[in-house]
Amino acid sequence: MTEIAFIGLGTMGCPMAERLIRAGHTLRLNRVKEASSHLIALGGRAEASAALAAEGAEVVILMLPDTPDVEQVLFGAGGVASGLSRGALVIDMSSIDPVATREFAKRVREQGGHYLDAPVSGGEIGAKGGTLSIMVGGEAEQFNRALPLFEILGKNINLIGENGAGQVAKVANQIIVALTIEGVSEALLLAQRAGVAPDKVRQALLGGFAQSRILEVHGQRIIDKSFAPGFAIRLHRKDLNLAANAARALQLDLPNTTATLKMMDDAVTQGNGDRDHSALFLTLEAKSAQDAAQGST
Amino acid sequence: MTEIAFIGLGTMGCPMAERLIRAGHTLRLNRVKEASSHLIALGGRAEASAALAAEGAEVVILMLPDTPDVEQVLFGAGGVASGLSRGALVIDMSSIDPVATREFAKRVREQGGHYLDAPVSGGEIGAKGGTLSIMVGGEAEQFNRALPLFEILGKNINLIGENGAGQVAKVANQIIVALTIEGVSEALLLAQRAGVAPDKVRQALLGGFAQSRILEVHGQRIIDKSFAPGFAIRLHRKDLNLAANAARALQLDLPNTTATLKMMDDAVTQGNGDRDHSALFLTLEAKSAQDAAQGST
Repeated sequence: MTEIAFIGLGTMGCPMAERLIRAGHTLRLNRVKEASSHLIALGGRAEASAALAAEGAEVVILMLPDTPDVEQVLFGAGGVASGLSRGALVIDMSSIDPVATREFAKRVREQGGHYLDAPVSGGEIGAKGGTLSIMVGGEAEQFNRALPLFEILGKNINLIGENGAGQVAKVANQIIVALTIEGVSEALLLAQRAGVAPDKVRQALLGGFAQSRILEVHGQRIIDKSFAPGFAIRLHRKDLNLAANAARALQLDLPNTTATLKMMDDAVTQGNGDRDHSALFLTLEAKSAQDAAQGST
Repeated sequence: MTEIAFIGLGTMGCPMAERLIRAGHTLRLNRVKEASSHLIALGGRAEASAALAAEGAEVVILMLPDTPDVEQVLFGAGGVASGLSRGALVIDMSSIDPVATREFAKRVREQGGHYLDAPVSGGEIGAKGGTLSIMVGGEAEQFNRALPLFEILGKNINLIGENGAGQVAKVANQIIVALTIEGVSEALLLAQRAGVAPDKVRQALLGGFAQSRILEVHGQRIIDKSFAPGFAIRLHRKDLNLAANAARALQLDLPNTTATLKMMDDAVTQGNGDRDHSALFLTLEAKSAQDAAQGST
């Protein structure tokens, strides 16, 4: 049994922590709220700060919203770094900036700790069911050390490369998912506007090179106009912002990523930020309705 | 056994005609060239014009490069229309403009014939192996009449809707394939530039929502830098032009289709038109190399 400090008990973190407790591990929790108070009943221990949670823990898992949150929890006042035991392993499972991740890993190592970046995909359903995909950056030795914990949380677990490589893979994942949703949306919008049943088009295309899990799952959502998340546009927008920032740092021009991020900005402005990312279809549809109206005046 | 006029014996048409002959059908061929002369040895009959090929044929199949070719073969001097028997079925398996298709179907019906648009995907390999996907627009009765022939040529055969719907589905297919290739290219380029092994990223992502046949097949080609076609960029560019034209006619704004068509234009200018469409990666890579060089001056 491993002593684990788990920081970040939101939509993803809470069910992940629960799975680790139920598997018999000792969890030290910080910032327990009403929605996560059942973790205490299950045996989790509430600690007053991230530093206190980290003290004596062999592993510290973070599951936080964004890059500044991770920096604050690691290196801020009362943060993990000030309580970290020598040789302890920090596993950041948040989706954050790959470049910042390399810096965080370096600072943790300088303090005698180890670091893995291990962002996930698979959403709340994956977190509850232990079926997350986990993309890991760091040393093989630390990956092997963490693997028994990862196997409680996920199914498709891959060591991609050095620190930061997990976050790069996650960013790559979010680019492909966003651009495939956008592509499926353009195709189904064309079919709809041409008076052709989008469900027949989807069905026919699934048998060929246009096949994707996005066409299967999100294509169906677009056809059903069923946009309850799933994964909210405002969260995907955050991830695509990470992609755009990484591209900028690497002097890369990723035109369709940039254009699709802009569409997600528009989707949020239009009040669709909390809808599933497949609702990008609505932004595309609205844009064309507007253009058609202007064209007809 | 059906008397079939088959017009268009190129890379796709030639093996398709051969499959029909080997299945026992009588083929009347027009414009037999050296590359298709073996069809005569197999029992195909050479005719001096499309009109003569169509005379007495129950079914006329077209497999031609583009919209003007189909118009010329159907309605030009010595064209199919001037020889078409009453009740004969014209099946256009070319990938052409959906709006023009509706007009062609109307004109054929006015002359007492029937019409199906039935574009395919699956390329030369699918044409040879009889594993094409066939997307059909037209009346159910005519679809059922053609089905025994389609089953010699393909596996995934779908009636999508009325005339034009097959071409709309094909255009939708080509949008999704192009935009997925472009998305996979942006993601793998980011990984490569960040110093993360693209093959590890591809492998990890295949288990989640980024999965697609494009990531499987074309992702591997991009990683191997193996760009022999497959499906040539210049051909996909033609199909994406059909998409752009259809969007314009429907007053639709399809931003990533437009941007990706522009990239395909650039790819052709750069001398990559005959490479596989996954070589779009090279255009993206070249663009960023250029930007980086300008940024550093």
